[in-house]
Amino acid sequence: MLDTLLGENAAAGEIVRPPRLIAAMRHATLGGGKRLRALLVVETAALFGHEAEGALRAAAAIECVHAYSLVHDDLPAMDDDDLRRGRPTVHRAFDEATAILAGDALLTLAFDILADERTDTDAATRIALVSEAARGAGVGGMVGGQMLDLAAEGRFGSSAPDEVGVRLIQRMKTGALIRASVAMGATLGRASAAERAALDIYATGFGAAFQIADDLLDLESTPESIGKATGKDDAKGKATLANRLGIKRAREELERLTDEAVVALSRFGKEADILREAARFAAARNS
Amino acid sequence: MLDTLLGENAAAGEIVRPPRLIAAMRHATLGGGKRLRALLVVETAALFGHEAEGALRAAAAIECVHAYSLVHDDLPAMDDDDLRRGRPTVHRAFDEATAILAGDALLTLAFDILADERTDTDAATRIALVSEAARGAGVGGMVGGQMLDLAAEGRFGSSAPDEVGVRLIQRMKTGALIRASVAMGATLGRASAAERAALDIYATGFGAAFQIADDLLDLESTPESIGKATGKDDAKGKATLANRLGIKRAREELERLTDEAVVALSRFGKEADILREAARFAAARNS
Repeated sequence: MLDTLLGENAAAGEIVRPPRLIAAMRHATLGGGKRLRALLVVETAALFGHEAEGALRAAAAIECVHAYSLVHDDLPAMDDDDLRRGRPTVHRAFDEATAILAGDALLTLAFDILADERTDTDAATRIALVSEAARGAGVGGMVGGQMLDLAAEGRFGSSAPDEVGVRLIQRMKTGALIRASVAMGATLGRASAAERAALDIYATGFGAAFQIADDLLDLESTPESIGKATGKDDAKGKATLANRLGIKRAREELERLTDEAVVALSRFGKEADILREAARFAAARNS
Repeated sequence: MLDTLLGENAAAGEIVRPPRLIAAMRHATLGGGKRLRALLVVETAALFGHEAEGALRAAAAIECVHAYSLVHDDLPAMDDDDLRRGRPTVHRAFDEATAILAGDALLTLAFDILADERTDTDAATRIALVSEAARGAGVGGMVGGQMLDLAAEGRFGSSAPDEVGVRLIQRMKTGALIRASVAMGATLGRASAAERAALDIYATGFGAAFQIADDLLDLESTPESIGKATGKDDAKGKATLANRLGIKRAREELERLTDEAVVALSRFGKEADILREAARFAAARNS
């Protein structure tokens, strides 16, 4: 789907698509990655028997948002990373200006994809998707979380957050977009308010567990095994639960949150097994 | 409107709004500027008697998109500008990371604003606004134009564009968002296809004229008079019609395009006078 959406030919209403910009956008999105957010959209929609192309489009949109955030986070002025998914980051493979623009274009494309009638024939549904993606990704969600994360490094004066502060940062930086992914699947599936509430508990636990697993990987892995630099969180004074709680307690917290996510799905039957497995996978992953 | 939308309190569905990020977003949007794009949205909608809050919201959204593009264009890796609207650029007043994130958050907020039901009670209308903004701003519009503009400086190998190439860059870099602004006003006003077509000719002429006026200002003004650095286009080898055609022919082209824009409005009566004046103002402006 992303491969198609990121073709070189201009879509309706576009003028031309600069090949260099498309190449950078493709580098950012098509080079692997776990596609967990995409899976959450598609599998949540599938809970309700929704298996149309629209879920794949919404999933592609959320992966564009995720990819843009990685491209910008990797920039020299931000986390300054050279490696992502085992390949050079976009500003290393291309250049900084191209990386900034590719991120901007991916974020914009996400909303373009969601607004297209192929995503859902019902305009109110599409608008709900736009809203959910924007709230999850914006100043009060993912981007805000990245801002707080940089502040927690002490860039703007001392401000090492306590455990509560770290949980807030992570709820915004990774949690918000994961919750948005599940919410978008629920929107496509026309979930009831009660179903949405259960799924949001699932997504919240999933997101928190996922981030702890990520932090533990940074502490315990090699760059070869996970395709990006490791040991950086401590070097930068990043705020992580793993370094606030210690590895042992962080592992316990990871399990607790995963259980919480799985229990939230108890109202669903076998059709939710993939979502349950996804939570277990996110907790146990080693890359 | 922007002042309200950029308050420090989290909106529904948001977690918290980091004060530093909000401050940077406010710096980028509330420090003056001509608000021409906002005017185009509001005055185009007003042609059809549409004077609801929704047009102000859509106008605020398009100003967020415009402001984000300036924040990112001013970054060291891009145009490396210290001054904008007579004040330090966001990365100078704050820092580079904050500027990148503030731009990202403004772009995201724009879609959030458009998706909100206060912008229009009809979901299909809101989706059309999202689509128009995304197409105008994205890879095949504004961002793509910025990419081509950097390429035209020779950053990625020699590629000085000819006059046709310069017109394409400008049609994308500034033209696309100006056309989107007018299209959004027409969408809010429920314009007919014929009215939309006439307005698009207006917007296309307006956008092209506006850019030539901008290029002439860069050549002929002082930083004090226009609140940003001047004489930079030539220094950077920027592709402008003023340096392709020479000042005299560029002025003639500016007048021709302005006339074209005004003539396109002939089907409208006195209610289009502000749009006519806007085109004249954009051509004659000295700041």
